Amino acid sequence: MDRARLSLNQYTVKPWTLREAMDACVRHGIPAIAPWRDKLAEHGVEAAARDLRAAGLRVSSLCRGGFFPAPTASERRARVDDNLRAIDEAATIGAPVLVLVCGPAAGASLAEARAMVHDGIEAVLPHARASNVRLAIEPLHPMMIAERSVVASLGEANDLCESFASPHVAVIADVYHIFWDYRVEAEIARAGTSVAGFHLSDWRTPTGDVTADRAMIGDGIIDLTALARAVAGAGFTGDIEIEILNTRCWAGDQETTLRTALERYEGLK
Amino acid sequence: MDRARLSLNQYTVKPWTLREAMDACVRHGIPAIAPWRDKLAEHGVEAAARDLRAAGLRVSSLCRGGFFPAPTASERRARVDDNLRAIDEAATIGAPVLVLVCGPAAGASLAEARAMVHDGIEAVLPHARASNVRLAIEPLHPMMIAERSVVASLGEANDLCESFASPHVAVIADVYHIFWDYRVEAEIARAGTSVAGFHLSDWRTPTGDVTADRAMIGDGIIDLTALARAVAGAGFTGDIEIEILNTRCWAGDQETTLRTALERYEGLK
Repeated sequence: MDRARLSLNQYTVKPWTLREAMDACVRHGIPAIAPWRDKLAEHGVEAAARDLRAAGLRVSSLCRGGFFPAPTASERRARVDDNLRAIDEAATIGAPVLVLVCGPAAGASLAEARAMVHDGIEAVLPHARASNVRLAIEPLHPMMIAERSVVASLGEANDLCESFASPHVAVIADVYHIFWDYRVEAEIARAGTSVAGFHLSDWRTPTGDVTADRAMIGDGIIDLTALARAVAGAGFTGDIEIEILNTRCWAGDQETTLRTALERYEGLK
Repeated sequence: MDRARLSLNQYTVKPWTLREAMDACVRHGIPAIAPWRDKLAEHGVEAAARDLRAAGLRVSSLCRGGFFPAPTASERRARVDDNLRAIDEAATIGAPVLVLVCGPAAGASLAEARAMVHDGIEAVLPHARASNVRLAIEPLHPMMIAERSVVASLGEANDLCESFASPHVAVIADVYHIFWDYRVEAEIARAGTSVAGFHLSDWRTPTGDVTADRAMIGDGIIDLTALARAVAGAGFTGDIEIEILNTRCWAGDQETTLRTALERYEGLK
């Protein structure tokens, strides 16, 4: 695949600061980056906007908003406020997309939590529209439902997205989270131009932490070429993020991880 | 829930022999059991049939057939032959249902493997029909796709089941594998009387082995009451299996595990 459409999701090289990740993008000719909010906060949002521009880097997305369900109305309001700030940050750094990891049930039933996710997106949508930031619902792998996201399939994300019928609500197609679904290609086609991001890693069965044991591109069983073809067929023309969350990689040499990921990415058809 | 409809899936108390598990069922007034084939082989199939009858125990299902995908035609034929033997064993012990864990892709693509699963079921269906044993496709949690089953959602199992349009092909609703799905209740309703089994455990995010880290009934986040209502609404009237695969429970006292599971089962609405 073409490096001209590549974006480095910052948590692939989580130990690095935003400055270090930006420098690595420039060094390797990676034209885009997807910062995470904790890294952005360390750097300063205004400074990041300036430095990203100066480095000539596009921003593919900001990770992440979401986590809407909470036990009380005031806590849910605080989550909404945090998402409003995330939208501001995305707009400031020129991120066209805010990735939403929707959050776990937090003591509610799954159905109640799913309603809270809907209501949370509804509450922040006017600000997203005014800021021209797309809210991109990322369905997470069903094994993360208790900690990360009650939205656990692309079909569910598509239903939720369609319920808003807004160009400012979209979905993320992250191969790790959705490849197992026998309907994955049909759901990508159904999403069409609502696909606001395409994230690459690979699947090997996690042996410990289910969140950060993702495999290097090419080391797992995901048919990445088929999924890349599906998102292209759906009309997605944006930057493609390498997003490999892996505690062992984080404990190792980041430059090695990045070089390997780049080789694997370029080797993909 | 009512102990009159309870079945002990033998791997809940995996360290026990079939004899020990049968004795425990009699001791606790559990009217049914679901043996596993390895335990059946130890005991002897004919002897098991006789001893189960003598103990007055119903058999809810035999675990398990399946594992159809394999790299070569001769290996796939060997898998089919093994499933034919499993059907014979089920018929011999009076199990109305053979649970199918369909198998991983084994080097093929997911689409190819899914076709192999279809072909495997097709190959054994005449013998199942002649033996009056239902082949029950058990969708497994998507996190088990690389080792256990390419059939990873109840929707997929329903599609596969419907493709045969036979009363001898059915599905299993195991809460652990399907609860995360926003369409789970709709898919249970769609399955209707094709639901040939209802298995109980609970979900906590696994911290190691994704196969055998299931939680005790009541210790997790699954809305068991809602799912029990859904399978009842679909028309399922069979025995309800307690199936808690957990390496820590297996390392502990089996009688304690069983007593706890019974209390929790009876406490369910």
